[in-house]
Amino acid sequence: MSFCTIALDAMGGDHAPLAVVDGAALFARSNTAVEFLFFGDQKVITPLLKKHRALAQKSRIIHTDIKIGSHERPREAFRVDKKNSSMRLAIEAVKRKEAHCCVSGGNSGALMGLSKVILGTVPGLDRPAMVSTYPTKKGETVMLDLGANLICNAENLRQFAIMGGAYAFSVLGIKEPKIGLINVGIEDTKGNEVIQEAHSLIKATELRGDYVGFIEGDDIAKGQIDVVVTDGFTGNVALKASEGLARLIQAYLRRAFTGSFFGKLAYVFCYVPLKTLRKQLDPRKNNGAVLVGLNGISVKSHGSTDGVGFSYAITVAYNLHKSGFIERIERRLSHLQKVNAEITSLRDKT
Amino acid sequence: MSFCTIALDAMGGDHAPLAVVDGAALFARSNTAVEFLFFGDQKVITPLLKKHRALAQKSRIIHTDIKIGSHERPREAFRVDKKNSSMRLAIEAVKRKEAHCCVSGGNSGALMGLSKVILGTVPGLDRPAMVSTYPTKKGETVMLDLGANLICNAENLRQFAIMGGAYAFSVLGIKEPKIGLINVGIEDTKGNEVIQEAHSLIKATELRGDYVGFIEGDDIAKGQIDVVVTDGFTGNVALKASEGLARLIQAYLRRAFTGSFFGKLAYVFCYVPLKTLRKQLDPRKNNGAVLVGLNGISVKSHGSTDGVGFSYAITVAYNLHKSGFIERIERRLSHLQKVNAEITSLRDKT
Repeated sequence: MSFCTIALDAMGGDHAPLAVVDGAALFARSNTAVEFLFFGDQKVITPLLKKHRALAQKSRIIHTDIKIGSHERPREAFRVDKKNSSMRLAIEAVKRKEAHCCVSGGNSGALMGLSKVILGTVPGLDRPAMVSTYPTKKGETVMLDLGANLICNAENLRQFAIMGGAYAFSVLGIKEPKIGLINVGIEDTKGNEVIQEAHSLIKATELRGDYVGFIEGDDIAKGQIDVVVTDGFTGNVALKASEGLARLIQAYLRRAFTGSFFGKLAYVFCYVPLKTLRKQLDPRKNNGAVLVGLNGISVKSHGSTDGVGFSYAITVAYNLHKSGFIERIERRLSHLQKVNAEITSLRDKT
Repeated sequence: MSFCTIALDAMGGDHAPLAVVDGAALFARSNTAVEFLFFGDQKVITPLLKKHRALAQKSRIIHTDIKIGSHERPREAFRVDKKNSSMRLAIEAVKRKEAHCCVSGGNSGALMGLSKVILGTVPGLDRPAMVSTYPTKKGETVMLDLGANLICNAENLRQFAIMGGAYAFSVLGIKEPKIGLINVGIEDTKGNEVIQEAHSLIKATELRGDYVGFIEGDDIAKGQIDVVVTDGFTGNVALKASEGLARLIQAYLRRAFTGSFFGKLAYVFCYVPLKTLRKQLDPRKNNGAVLVGLNGISVKSHGSTDGVGFSYAITVAYNLHKSGFIERIERRLSHLQKVNAEITSLRDKT
């Protein structure tokens, strides 16, 4: 198994650095071939590390006391006096190949902005996309884009299909993910021009697993599709509408249940599963909203999470590295470019 | 109170003509100033009407034995040998002003196609839209477009706002409906060009009630907005995704509840409210998916409904007529055209 160095922003998130150190310790218990770079205040991190002897042996602290606040505007993160912020240093460690991936529970906008600028995009990719998972009858499905690109052309959607497939492989461990393109109907003739063209492009792309074609909104939760491809506007609205509905159902049940003893009891039974579902649906609240397509792995952890939650974010970053997520996307995109170049050269000859 | 003549397709729907006659009888009990035109097989309708003496006195049967099947392709409805179909005759009665509105439980695609061609659109309107209601914490919200227009420009969205406001007034009885435009964030700077332009256009439009500006997907179910405006692609996907999620939650709860006696009991408590919600969410299953913007009122009733359901569809058609739904839209659009013409003439002078 290949060795993995993980850069951690020890100043990002409500419970940093405690949640960061706890998360790393938890992760290190089941993953031995790793080491950690903690970016943050040495005075605070050192005593925390002392409590985890095994972790301390595979950790280094890179001291900085400059932090990006969770309420700062993303562009503030680029200021000269923030050059040595813990978040920026962690991302730069990935850029300089001193780490294989980085994880931060800090300011989402700042993390995305810095990651995009510092790491750049995968060669051959037009635009990165925001990806998350949506709960289904059978587990989870990968959904993208969720708001990074409000207007998408057919080629963007094809590249999202490629990235979504790679993400399902890397994070959910699905070998041949089924990919679907959202449309207003499943018949081949449905949809606008962009959707129609994207459908043809994806069909013509050599994708591991199957492109199943068009799917409708109510297919997302059914669990027969592993990757749901859509533009950032539709994806964002659909995901948030679903989250709002889940909240409504919870309120609805609460109302239906008050009145009788059994009703109240029934509500207690509903409460936990519904809350879990809602959390899964909210990309702002879970650890899974990742900007994919960057030329380096940078994962956001939920800011208010504890060590358990943070270790989950580390797992996502680790899996993306271990499975060769970026290389997989790069390979597919370079293959695509070759095919396109051949087509162009054939056209020129005729 | 103005008198209302209602044309009924007595051959449309699984339980026609029984559900149609029962629905009319039910409606006539609380609405006296109405008469009905039944389009269908005289031999079958006559004995059914005999059971409702009061209804029979305010009803006429226009005989035809030509029916449009629920599984026929919409374009079949236009064939010469279907010229005297019960559905087509009912719509034509509205066109010829022999009826104020029509209701059919038959083939949705055929009803929309025929209505669009026979009735035409409201003067000044660019494109009709599909509208339905979405359940919220406080009741219902009107949502459009749900799939009639996959690509919309800013002017389309403004016209949807006008029609949605009129629909909320006519069908939900909301005097000053709050109108929101779906976006990926509520800040004024968010969204693509079309959304930005639509935002400016709607702000500049004199609308009864308030245009509240941008809303996000999770605002739909909150109940603070009476009209949700979006393009047909996003609306369709968001509505269906919500419906799929409601179905998932139901399955999820079923799973969570099996095992213990109390769990099973709790499920029984959940079942009914969840089923109701799901029905409300599915535009194919409820009576509320209306194509608005036509120059005549044509309402679809759910095909498998009984008399109670059919009477609800009659109520929608009746309310649209009684409240002057079309005139309201026409007035606003003509006002808009005047303002636009003035702006153009002012520009030409300078």
